[in-house]
Amino acid sequence: MFKGKARAYTNIALIKYWGKKNETLILPMNNSLSLTLDAFYTETEILFSEEFTEDRFYLDDQLQDEKATKKISAFLDLARKKAGIAYKATITSQNFVPTAAGLASSASGLAALAGACNEALHLGLDDKELSRLARRGSGSACRSIFGGFVEWEKGHDDESSYAQPVPSNNFEEELAMVFVLLNDQKKDVSSRDGMRRTVATSSFYQGWLDTVEADLYQLKQAIHTKDFQALGETMERNALKMHGTTLAALPPFTYWSADSLKAMQAVRTLRNEGIPCYFTMDAGPNVKVLVEKKQEEIVRQAFSDLFSPQQVITAHAGPGIKIIE
Amino acid sequence: MFKGKARAYTNIALIKYWGKKNETLILPMNNSLSLTLDAFYTETEILFSEEFTEDRFYLDDQLQDEKATKKISAFLDLARKKAGIAYKATITSQNFVPTAAGLASSASGLAALAGACNEALHLGLDDKELSRLARRGSGSACRSIFGGFVEWEKGHDDESSYAQPVPSNNFEEELAMVFVLLNDQKKDVSSRDGMRRTVATSSFYQGWLDTVEADLYQLKQAIHTKDFQALGETMERNALKMHGTTLAALPPFTYWSADSLKAMQAVRTLRNEGIPCYFTMDAGPNVKVLVEKKQEEIVRQAFSDLFSPQQVITAHAGPGIKIIE
Repeated sequence: MFKGKARAYTNIALIKYWGKKNETLILPMNNSLSLTLDAFYTETEILFSEEFTEDRFYLDDQLQDEKATKKISAFLDLARKKAGIAYKATITSQNFVPTAAGLASSASGLAALAGACNEALHLGLDDKELSRLARRGSGSACRSIFGGFVEWEKGHDDESSYAQPVPSNNFEEELAMVFVLLNDQKKDVSSRDGMRRTVATSSFYQGWLDTVEADLYQLKQAIHTKDFQALGETMERNALKMHGTTLAALPPFTYWSADSLKAMQAVRTLRNEGIPCYFTMDAGPNVKVLVEKKQEEIVRQAFSDLFSPQQVITAHAGPGIKIIE
Repeated sequence: MFKGKARAYTNIALIKYWGKKNETLILPMNNSLSLTLDAFYTETEILFSEEFTEDRFYLDDQLQDEKATKKISAFLDLARKKAGIAYKATITSQNFVPTAAGLASSASGLAALAGACNEALHLGLDDKELSRLARRGSGSACRSIFGGFVEWEKGHDDESSYAQPVPSNNFEEELAMVFVLLNDQKKDVSSRDGMRRTVATSSFYQGWLDTVEADLYQLKQAIHTKDFQALGETMERNALKMHGTTLAALPPFTYWSADSLKAMQAVRTLRNEGIPCYFTMDAGPNVKVLVEKKQEEIVRQAFSDLFSPQQVITAHAGPGIKIIE
């Protein structure tokens, strides 16, 4: 019997991962850059035993259905192959993240699972190798191996596609991200399906690819010079562009709700009032507002008033993956 | 003293005019196709007299400022040149359209002015020549010369860029457009500035140009076969794509408000409930819902309930320009 447990934190992309060039290996079309956050995380324990006859996956105390388990089993097969064993496993996972609401629970979930496997099976993977393994479970999970600012180098094959920390001189310690939770329902279009449809059909996708490297460069410059305005403007511009690509997909779709627009407009209003803050959004209606810590309370209060205090959660830079005894 | 008066109706593009290739001549980047509507129109009277010392422009009984008058004067110069006279003019215009709220008041306004000039100065322009003249005042005005479905052929010079009716076997008589008025304030970004910024800076603009001809072809096929679903889907897709281009402009911008999203979502909900209806939007937050006449009352009622009855106006296909004695 082999046992391991790990905790991984979610990450929010400031430069978005949007489109795969290889669906099997999960190789992305472009580099992305994220901030790992402390407020949302997943703890996962895994037990491998020769007595188990099948993989079982409990998420938040619920035994998951065949479809969800099959996806996890495929991932475990990669770890089992590395270890040279065939034992089935029981996975017990606790998500401290609203699931499938665009808060990237799959990122923290698959990163934690990769870490738990590494521990349980004594794989001895270093962080870079662990990032590559996590990527195979869910692309953005490769970034949750590390804390702070993290860049996912797209690479060109399984070996070369992994995340690594971005030197930041602790700039992330000055920042807060205010989550405005506008819907914790399951999404209409998953991020996986959304990016697939966009890559395959959107006449805007080439325009995304043509400019994302420049956005990435500018964002890294902003981190390097600790220029919050440049960081925020570049992040917001990149998010709007990602969401713009879906409007030219066939059929077109959007992750935005009326409340998303209301929150975006509130960010613009705060800026007009002299509070520097910027938004980003993922494959769901929630809006995440980047602000300097010194002004996070003003932003939190503004969104608590506009929506409700229960819908607003402030996060700060979080650590990389942790093994739990 | 020369006098003329004309009434022109507004038009809503189903395939959008979005971007100029020549700002002076107002030559568009792509063909567009509109429906002229009966509910919103402009009546304009013009008096040319050798006793006038300057052009004066009254809109809705208000004498307009220098900037607005200068634009009108530049247009009148084109008409004066054709007539070989230099008389100044007094223009009295009544707009039965919420001004500058994306309801294309400039389309009906400049079409009516062109018609009034044609009458007053005995220019003897036929509809095609009148369309070319109106185009110089405001691009979309060239379509308001005609009733029903109208295509603006982009052309390549002043001669070849004009609108003409689209054969429809009276399909337009079966349709209604329900206007959901979400804001009658002046816009943040005018359509003129918005399209200019988009053409100059948006990485999605090429994707727009690459696909608009296919949209136009499919829309004309839908008119030809009286296929309401194909008409609506193509129109809605084209509008979403136009609005998507602004999200990649530098800086990015949007014409959408929270209520716009709410209205778009309501259209999707009505469709899911079995009511075929489709939306389009222009350079403002208003949402226009295309529906077959036999179901217009259901749609009108739904939006009256969701917003207020005062915000909902139903329009039907309208006629071309009319000279008024």
